[in-house]
Amino acid sequence: MTSMVAPINVGLQFRGNWCNAKKKVEDKAGEFFQQRFNSSCHANALKKKRRFSLLVSSSRGNDTMNRITHVQLAHLTTEMLGSESEAHASSLVTFFRGSFVEDRFVYRQIFFVRSYEVGPHKTTTIQTLMNFLQETGLNHAFSCWESKDNFGVTHEMEHHKLIWVTTRIQVQVEKYSKWGDEVEVDTWFDTAGRNGVRRDWIIRDHYTKEIIAKATSTWVMINRETRRLSKIPEPVRQELVPFCFNKLAIATEEIDHQKIHKLTDATAERFHNGIVPGWNDMDVNQHVNNVKYIKWILESMAEEVLKDYKMTNMTLEFRRECTVSDYLESMTCSSSKVIGVSNNNSVNRQPELQYIHLLRLQNNKEELVRARTEWHLKQNQH
Amino acid sequence: MTSMVAPINVGLQFRGNWCNAKKKVEDKAGEFFQQRFNSSCHANALKKKRRFSLLVSSSRGNDTMNRITHVQLAHLTTEMLGSESEAHASSLVTFFRGSFVEDRFVYRQIFFVRSYEVGPHKTTTIQTLMNFLQETGLNHAFSCWESKDNFGVTHEMEHHKLIWVTTRIQVQVEKYSKWGDEVEVDTWFDTAGRNGVRRDWIIRDHYTKEIIAKATSTWVMINRETRRLSKIPEPVRQELVPFCFNKLAIATEEIDHQKIHKLTDATAERFHNGIVPGWNDMDVNQHVNNVKYIKWILESMAEEVLKDYKMTNMTLEFRRECTVSDYLESMTCSSSKVIGVSNNNSVNRQPELQYIHLLRLQNNKEELVRARTEWHLKQNQH
Repeated sequence: MTSMVAPINVGLQFRGNWCNAKKKVEDKAGEFFQQRFNSSCHANALKKKRRFSLLVSSSRGNDTMNRITHVQLAHLTTEMLGSESEAHASSLVTFFRGSFVEDRFVYRQIFFVRSYEVGPHKTTTIQTLMNFLQETGLNHAFSCWESKDNFGVTHEMEHHKLIWVTTRIQVQVEKYSKWGDEVEVDTWFDTAGRNGVRRDWIIRDHYTKEIIAKATSTWVMINRETRRLSKIPEPVRQELVPFCFNKLAIATEEIDHQKIHKLTDATAERFHNGIVPGWNDMDVNQHVNNVKYIKWILESMAEEVLKDYKMTNMTLEFRRECTVSDYLESMTCSSSKVIGVSNNNSVNRQPELQYIHLLRLQNNKEELVRARTEWHLKQNQH
Repeated sequence: MTSMVAPINVGLQFRGNWCNAKKKVEDKAGEFFQQRFNSSCHANALKKKRRFSLLVSSSRGNDTMNRITHVQLAHLTTEMLGSESEAHASSLVTFFRGSFVEDRFVYRQIFFVRSYEVGPHKTTTIQTLMNFLQETGLNHAFSCWESKDNFGVTHEMEHHKLIWVTTRIQVQVEKYSKWGDEVEVDTWFDTAGRNGVRRDWIIRDHYTKEIIAKATSTWVMINRETRRLSKIPEPVRQELVPFCFNKLAIATEEIDHQKIHKLTDATAERFHNGIVPGWNDMDVNQHVNNVKYIKWILESMAEEVLKDYKMTNMTLEFRRECTVSDYLESMTCSSSKVIGVSNNNSVNRQPELQYIHLLRLQNNKEELVRARTEWHLKQNQH
């Protein structure tokens, strides 16, 4: 058994005064893992009551890249590890923050759906799903380039004063999870064209592996001072390349490449005015977080649709940033046009309702976001 | 060691078609735990590749109430339980969902602050803190009465058609955490007067145990159909009593018992109109989630205060529910009056700014929430 399940990585996180215990704990951790996978046990009792925990990754060897690397949190008391003295550490799972899988091309993070992440139907809101995508993408970037403080920016991007902006995102939702459910989000990226990057995600039920949602997005770089579009500088490209992974979350024929028509005062059916982004809607880059737009877009939807239907597909096209205290207007128009779905077997994917949306500035009518959404009648009505 | 660390509770969660494996898994789980704590290993192989997970609680015996109860989620594959061939396992900790500590009087949950839970200052928003409080309270209730689907409602409350409503909450914030920080939320409750319940919380840094925030709240029961206040029926009281814990998170002299003055058109200095709760602001009880009110209250605050100051104390007094499509008005007035802080040593707690707020219906001026907030200048300005 040892040969198949070998600890490959033992990481410890110490705070406070416990660093001196590190070596000791590492040794003990090895023992502990040997113990678990070898079935030979020889842990000693410990007198201390202090606790620590230990971050341990173990894989099934690297004979196949499709095998999953499990990261385990052994949340241990000192008694379990056997330190004589003051071993005291605290614990973490990478699981909380995610970890690389598939030979470091894919990054995976597990989420437990929290009570405040579900809506009135007791299922996750589309904003929650988008938050999961954002969090996983950022943690992925952090793991690639340790770019935590800059929210996804690489070292060379920082050097060139570049930041990421999304231009388009499509999310296909198969199922909305419930409070307490565990979902597993996989993400990866690839270069797209000359100056773009494509980031994809697949969200699955952590247990059944049933697909919950798929998403694809396009990103470009802008100068954080001039806010102008930038080419990808060669040194930045060199940072991206080692992690690029050429795989599509959404099948080519289901990717929504279609232009989203611009709504006008004449064509829109429903309006919601007076939306004002507040200081608390800003993200760390001092612009409105993408996820907020969805809430505002949905504010011009009929309540009956939000109540009785679930969104199954959404495409957002970002056209302009907005800032604090801009007045926004949300507009919606139902559309009888059904986007062609080339897979004729997937009858269920044919939307029952389709809408086109526009979020624009109230004063000069400049467009912020165009969107298209598709909806299916909920099967279990409350 | 067995006498010190004895499994007290084994719960299993099955998905899909695996229920038939339950008995086998329970047996194996027992063995697994014996193995960890007894150092005697004799688990057998399981042939199935299907996975299951296993919620296992173990306590250190009940000889002292201060000892910590560990609840661990062992997320096991068949191999982990002892297969020679297919060993492959992954593990989870309940720390995702929380667990009882202090002899089951206190419930503790750990949170990793996510990117979308921090604001433009890169620190948690007050809404995020409130979400943590809510989640911990609900998980606590679930652990006491398995009341998950009813969001905190006990079996007898369900029988009497009662639900909880908050009447008042006070939150004292010492420090705002950053993305990736781990915070530990402790919560407990006690009966308060004839028909109320007090729920308290302490949020700490999971590593340093430094206090991040303290909170106290008062809850009463209403009939979910008539929305009228109810006494606590005796059978409900019997369900609450075993978990009641008489301890204060906020020192008596710092608890804000003072009446919050009612703001009027004449006394308010700043207004923000046209707030309309949407369908997605509703919670599973079909009323506006308490946390949403805070965002709306802060919408009538000056942007400079939100930017340069941090909120250190907040008291909310809930007076009326509101529903979808009500038009709300947020009003704020600065106050020179400083609440007496009896501990003269804690000079730092003297607020630099204090405000009174009102959230009311726009049409008939009915009050929804009164609030008082205190603010200190941020030390690290961006």
